[in-house]
Amino acid sequence: MTINEKYHDYVSIMQRIADVKYASAVLQWDQETYLPPKGADGRSRQLATLSELAHQMFTNDKLGNLLSDLNDSEDLNERQKKNIALSVIDYNKSKKFSSHFVKLMSECVSTSFHAWIQARKDNSYKIFQPALSKLIELKRQEAEILGYSDHPYNALMNDYERGLTVAMTDKIFSDIEQPLSELLVKVQQLPRPDDSFLYQHFPKQQQWEWGQYLARQLGFDEEAGRQDISEHPFTINFSSKDVRITTRIDEHDFANMTWSTIHEVGHALYEQGLPDAEYGLPLGEYASLSIHESQSRLWENCIGRGRAFWEYYYPGLQKSFPKQFGNISLNKFFNAINKVCPSLIRTEADELTYHFHVMIRYELEKLLIEGSLKVEDIPFYWNQQYKSLLGVEVPDDKQGCLQDVHWSHGSFGYFPTYSMGSFYAAQLWEKIKTDLPNVELGLASSGSTKCILQWLRNSIHFQGRFFSSEEVCKSVTGQPLDSKIFLKYMERKLLG
Amino acid sequence: MTINEKYHDYVSIMQRIADVKYASAVLQWDQETYLPPKGADGRSRQLATLSELAHQMFTNDKLGNLLSDLNDSEDLNERQKKNIALSVIDYNKSKKFSSHFVKLMSECVSTSFHAWIQARKDNSYKIFQPALSKLIELKRQEAEILGYSDHPYNALMNDYERGLTVAMTDKIFSDIEQPLSELLVKVQQLPRPDDSFLYQHFPKQQQWEWGQYLARQLGFDEEAGRQDISEHPFTINFSSKDVRITTRIDEHDFANMTWSTIHEVGHALYEQGLPDAEYGLPLGEYASLSIHESQSRLWENCIGRGRAFWEYYYPGLQKSFPKQFGNISLNKFFNAINKVCPSLIRTEADELTYHFHVMIRYELEKLLIEGSLKVEDIPFYWNQQYKSLLGVEVPDDKQGCLQDVHWSHGSFGYFPTYSMGSFYAAQLWEKIKTDLPNVELGLASSGSTKCILQWLRNSIHFQGRFFSSEEVCKSVTGQPLDSKIFLKYMERKLLG
Repeated sequence: MTINEKYHDYVSIMQRIADVKYASAVLQWDQETYLPPKGADGRSRQLATLSELAHQMFTNDKLGNLLSDLNDSEDLNERQKKNIALSVIDYNKSKKFSSHFVKLMSECVSTSFHAWIQARKDNSYKIFQPALSKLIELKRQEAEILGYSDHPYNALMNDYERGLTVAMTDKIFSDIEQPLSELLVKVQQLPRPDDSFLYQHFPKQQQWEWGQYLARQLGFDEEAGRQDISEHPFTINFSSKDVRITTRIDEHDFANMTWSTIHEVGHALYEQGLPDAEYGLPLGEYASLSIHESQSRLWENCIGRGRAFWEYYYPGLQKSFPKQFGNISLNKFFNAINKVCPSLIRTEADELTYHFHVMIRYELEKLLIEGSLKVEDIPFYWNQQYKSLLGVEVPDDKQGCLQDVHWSHGSFGYFPTYSMGSFYAAQLWEKIKTDLPNVELGLASSGSTKCILQWLRNSIHFQGRFFSSEEVCKSVTGQPLDSKIFLKYMERKLLG
Repeated sequence: MTINEKYHDYVSIMQRIADVKYASAVLQWDQETYLPPKGADGRSRQLATLSELAHQMFTNDKLGNLLSDLNDSEDLNERQKKNIALSVIDYNKSKKFSSHFVKLMSECVSTSFHAWIQARKDNSYKIFQPALSKLIELKRQEAEILGYSDHPYNALMNDYERGLTVAMTDKIFSDIEQPLSELLVKVQQLPRPDDSFLYQHFPKQQQWEWGQYLARQLGFDEEAGRQDISEHPFTINFSSKDVRITTRIDEHDFANMTWSTIHEVGHALYEQGLPDAEYGLPLGEYASLSIHESQSRLWENCIGRGRAFWEYYYPGLQKSFPKQFGNISLNKFFNAINKVCPSLIRTEADELTYHFHVMIRYELEKLLIEGSLKVEDIPFYWNQQYKSLLGVEVPDDKQGCLQDVHWSHGSFGYFPTYSMGSFYAAQLWEKIKTDLPNVELGLASSGSTKCILQWLRNSIHFQGRFFSSEEVCKSVTGQPLDSKIFLKYMERKLLG
């Protein structure tokens, strides 16, 4: 077989594996949107079987041999070489896991997810605890199987953000914690914006239509995706031509649906912009989780909580909700949607205190994975940290340690990418404003975000996974991640 | 390994295969309910890969060897023996197909389905024709691969109804065609019932709620299933605890949603009643397609178009739609919903002329599969037959040969089971009325169908696939299928 024939074989194997993984994603999407309660057990076993199959297919020796033959071959072009190099990394990682372990994990994740749903319903951590205990035990085993230096949590973080370590993350957070706290103190000395009008009654259907309108305006292709309702908003894709977002609607909280929709649209625009021709191959995938998050946070915060955006969209919003916003000035609205106030729920937190939410989870996960915090002590530790870092009392588990879906999915090591994503977003936004000097003027006058989307498509989306997070950052902004840019962005916004 | 250990291995292989098949069913359900248009290509390839995988798993020699070892073993109980015997039949059939053919068929079916959707949108058979041509070519190949005596269509019918032949079906239809035509003439000489009030404006949301209410009342377990909207109503299941039905709502046709919902609920009650403990095994499956259809037609027609049912439910319907039904008597309503009138659309046809729709499709499919009718001539043949058997002019393809989804799914040989299902239904209904002499009285006074469902569960549902259609019929009603019972049932209803 020639190298080209071998590459062709590699592509076709990878695409078959992708078919199974995306099928699995459809089942997960359905599980979180439409699954009837008694269907949970069947769904768990179906998901477990698909995971096991995808793993068997990916760790098959035939693929291994092809990768060996293709690795470093001079007959491949740049993009082909990159696909092979990244597949070799993924393959070697996958080979470490037995099919048995993969199936066990999938079953455990599915059970945990349903336990989490039930625990939230009954507002009781105790319902979630047994499943979570098992899951954490498996994640600790996973860290051992993957191998690590210094800290078992490194192995898990690496799964979401290649190369990220506890040492690096500790440094990033310790650099920013003090300045953020100081900024928080300064902001709290300013007059407190009134945001009570955001908590009037906003009928479900009207919110739903407003959210759909925003999504379309931002460039979400509704022919290549859709939006549904779920307990926890998320984005998932089954190809770059079928990208689904979900939202939740609280009739007494306008912000909840609006900015979570913009956030998920940010993720979805990235997925819709990935190169479809590389379906199933590494270059058809996103660069990293923190770059993914940089997209959602850029749209949600830098754009969607920016003054220019609302200069155009606020009159329309007032027309859609005249009773609620008719008498509220743009200035008052702008201050309200950027109000800083320590609170309980991460996904609803302001741009500044958000990072304390992440730091608490990061520290907690480190302790759990190294085994120095017991699973039954999570609520106690959680509540204590929220009191000490954010100064808020956690009234119950639903507003405390049960608020995020991640653990029930087995996602440990994921949260740090949320903060990094925000920092990347601020840095990208600065660069966009330099490259497109009239971007805010244009946004304010026409509401069109087309030039922003095109900039992101060209500089990030179309590349797929070609560059790592740091490489993306350097190649696009000219310098490595610098959280001071985020700080300055926040200071400008909040102190003027 | 002991026989018990081998049986255990067999069960676990079968259940893994079921996981993949049900995953595939989730993707199909999504394809017909929520898939965004650009997602169609990705979905086609994902479905094709899952079909191919399920086929590979089912034709694996390991399963073949287990089946050889277990077949006729005296150490298994009755149900275990039956599972093995049926799996051997299925296995031998599957072994005839190459993975390549299975994948090709799945891709072709998926393409055809999307072409059919588009063709219906544009009301143009020409759009569907190329995909349909390929599909029919593949189905002709399938018949050759399966092998047959007398007629290639036997091979395809056998896939839906084991043992059914062209000779048998010709006999059933020729026996009933003449008496049905005569009954139709008699009915047409009676005064024509007024059903115009069924075509007033019935708001979508109100219809939707009425349909959900009916489904619940009939015993559909909403914790183990759900209802959604699709182009063509259908029932699909991913276990007996996750059974989904779909409906469509026409705001100017009350009957469309109502009786198609009752029909699909009939299918769903059967699936929800199958033995969950036999997940993935033959005995966890339905007996046959005609028995499946006997359930839906029994609920839709014998019960759901019966006087007793509406004696209880009509006052509630009048309350829900006072403008539309407030001044209509029960008698007038009953006559309207049982009005006999030759028409264009099979799923909306009355109980009598329905079978002419089936006969036309049956004859047409026979001709297509034996190669004596060209695919481009379908509309001509279709329209001619509708004129000659039903006396109606077909105005366009959407109301003609594009109306049914079946061909786009590759289902040739399926339609005859619809008529057989109706005949079985009438025979079962007679037996129910004998076994539960107060069933209609109870229905009229309380609206409860619990005793009927329990009777069906005990005599049919809980058996799974243990008995064949004929065995079910004989063991439950004491005699083989007799279409004269259906004729008498119709005469009683229509001539009083």
